[in-house]
Amino acid sequence: MTDLPARSRALELDAGSPLRERRGLFSLPEGMVYLDGNSLGALPRTVPERISRVVTEEWGRDLIASWNTADWIGLPRQVGDRVADLLGLPEGSVWVSDSTSVSLFKTMVAACRLQTGRDVIVVESGTFPTDGYMAASVARMLDMELRWADSGHVEEAFDERVALACLTHVDFRTGAMFDAAAVTAAAHAAGSLMLWDLCHTAGAVPVDLVAADADFAVGCTYKYLNAGPGSPAFMYVAPRHQDAIDQPLSGWMGHARPFDMELAYEPVKGVGRLASGTPPVLALSALDAALDVFDGVDPADLRAMSLSLTDFFIELVDVRLPGVFEVVTPREHERRGSQVSLRHEQAYGIVQALIARRVVGDFRTPDVARFGFAPLYVTHADVYDAVDHLVAVMEGREYDRTEYATRNRVT
Amino acid sequence: MTDLPARSRALELDAGSPLRERRGLFSLPEGMVYLDGNSLGALPRTVPERISRVVTEEWGRDLIASWNTADWIGLPRQVGDRVADLLGLPEGSVWVSDSTSVSLFKTMVAACRLQTGRDVIVVESGTFPTDGYMAASVARMLDMELRWADSGHVEEAFDERVALACLTHVDFRTGAMFDAAAVTAAAHAAGSLMLWDLCHTAGAVPVDLVAADADFAVGCTYKYLNAGPGSPAFMYVAPRHQDAIDQPLSGWMGHARPFDMELAYEPVKGVGRLASGTPPVLALSALDAALDVFDGVDPADLRAMSLSLTDFFIELVDVRLPGVFEVVTPREHERRGSQVSLRHEQAYGIVQALIARRVVGDFRTPDVARFGFAPLYVTHADVYDAVDHLVAVMEGREYDRTEYATRNRVT
Repeated sequence: MTDLPARSRALELDAGSPLRERRGLFSLPEGMVYLDGNSLGALPRTVPERISRVVTEEWGRDLIASWNTADWIGLPRQVGDRVADLLGLPEGSVWVSDSTSVSLFKTMVAACRLQTGRDVIVVESGTFPTDGYMAASVARMLDMELRWADSGHVEEAFDERVALACLTHVDFRTGAMFDAAAVTAAAHAAGSLMLWDLCHTAGAVPVDLVAADADFAVGCTYKYLNAGPGSPAFMYVAPRHQDAIDQPLSGWMGHARPFDMELAYEPVKGVGRLASGTPPVLALSALDAALDVFDGVDPADLRAMSLSLTDFFIELVDVRLPGVFEVVTPREHERRGSQVSLRHEQAYGIVQALIARRVVGDFRTPDVARFGFAPLYVTHADVYDAVDHLVAVMEGREYDRTEYATRNRVT
Repeated sequence: MTDLPARSRALELDAGSPLRERRGLFSLPEGMVYLDGNSLGALPRTVPERISRVVTEEWGRDLIASWNTADWIGLPRQVGDRVADLLGLPEGSVWVSDSTSVSLFKTMVAACRLQTGRDVIVVESGTFPTDGYMAASVARMLDMELRWADSGHVEEAFDERVALACLTHVDFRTGAMFDAAAVTAAAHAAGSLMLWDLCHTAGAVPVDLVAADADFAVGCTYKYLNAGPGSPAFMYVAPRHQDAIDQPLSGWMGHARPFDMELAYEPVKGVGRLASGTPPVLALSALDAALDVFDGVDPADLRAMSLSLTDFFIELVDVRLPGVFEVVTPREHERRGSQVSLRHEQAYGIVQALIARRVVGDFRTPDVARFGFAPLYVTHADVYDAVDHLVAVMEGREYDRTEYATRNRVT
């Protein structure tokens, strides 16, 4: 039998991490092990002060002048550039304005319109639902066809009819990760464009979209980017497409001369043509402040911490709860995002029992207990304690309580 | 010659207003006359505290649990119901989630899809640009035609081909107001559906969409509803259409069972199917708090105050600056929104010179100085002082300064 790892090992790992000072940048509840940063990131300490200033000074005191004096009008690009920098993307290639769902619609239509004579959009069966719904809506509106690929063999779905492949880089349910470079190359070989959904990637898992030569990307900012509930998504467009894209939510803020109030739409040059309405200033300001926690972080350190945390979690589950769970998340580093998903028929009750013990993960239907490891603020000690509680939940059959028989609306 | 009205008359009018206590609910800069609430509403005092609580407690402390415990998930409907109540619309008929531009796209497509066999969308030439751009995009995607109506005779554009008329109830540039009931009746008589843009209406000008039997409406919340820069728009759908509409931004939050994560989209019954992505919690919370300033306000008092303010402004301009400006805004009450627009070839410089004197209005291309009168916080004394400054600007030719020769980006 393998020796039981000691908590002291967790503390040693934490002490040796180059990110050990970063947790202090977050306002985390006392006594909680928070493993749900892949659903809603924790609050960076920089955010409340910034929001307060935006509300009372920029809005309350300076009012309409703040569009110029506080450069509210520049926020979607400025914040986009900070996201671009974090993701290793070129300046001026990222725009932040609408929800992930809306951003997917814009970029999918824009991509498909670049592909005359092709009439298929490929999504894969493990995709987050919105991606599939939006692809279906785009296919319907552009008189195209939706093709569902098998997650394990997406390349097989690529052929001369495919205009666009839209894939989630890290699977929200399993944590499995695509090889972005290989899949993009396969899509391009078939003449398709490639759009990556980076919702479970940005801020936790490095991906080199420039090296992969990807065409488009969309990603969430309220998970590992910690910008707060319902914060807007980012959109990336490869420089070669920026002046050519033609997106359907052609609002006045994407016009070449918005304040000339012309009746004919003429999109501005560059990624700014992805804009639709007036930018969501409060949310963009929160995102701007939230990005401070990444200043000076080496993406390699982020990845190393994420892998160390997920390795440690899997090891503890293997050793302390052998045979109890199926570890759904790939064990190979190159196929793993920043979460670990455990399959168990009592997954819902298990997650609820853990939450009662202040270990917060989440449930994903039908039978997955999902644990996210945000590398900036989750520690090996958290991992150790989480598994300690998980052992207690399983030994005490705490998942079996009647109040867990009915599922909550949001889990 | 008419007697010059005295400032004491302004003070008397203010003292007699049933809304006189409302100004105290806003945080207004000392010494500023703010006549730009039709661009960005002033800050309600309830907002900073609410936002601070949402950020530090609901997000920072309670994290993901707040989707249930703070009912974040219910915000788009709950806040929608408050907007509905303010506008005299039925409960469950209003949804708040995305920008005005995106909301227009959703509702326009939804409306056109109800109209089989009709292929024209009508907009009018004075419309806010986004409405026209979105209508053009919708027409293109649904293989329809865009028809431009003359603002003065929109009914002439209605015929058997028209699927949808999309009109701005109060013109953003002139302040002219349509007769919603008459125009809706004319649209219906031709078999068209009617979508009203209420951006310059909601919170200042009563409109009875139920009596008018309108089909759809979209409106801004950062103008007279004071929800802050870039806050999301509201969408209204008449009860008869709610379970029939089919909108294109079919995101997971509009699914009948969002957390079952099904791959096929099945819209929820009711107005909730207008949802796309995760709701913008900070912005919705700001709107919720901002609506408190309307609690207990009689819409008739709101309208009476708005008309009294705009009447007084027009009277003072007439008497003190005879022949200097063309008053673009209709003098007839039933055709006037809550603003007064003055045409002058030096309008840009005039607005800038007034701003330098801390009288804030705005410029609308090509030659309009626009003054908004938010009836909850603008006073007759403000109006008196604004015209005093306007007289000084005109007499001193302050609009003629060289720094006003180049227009700012946002005005």
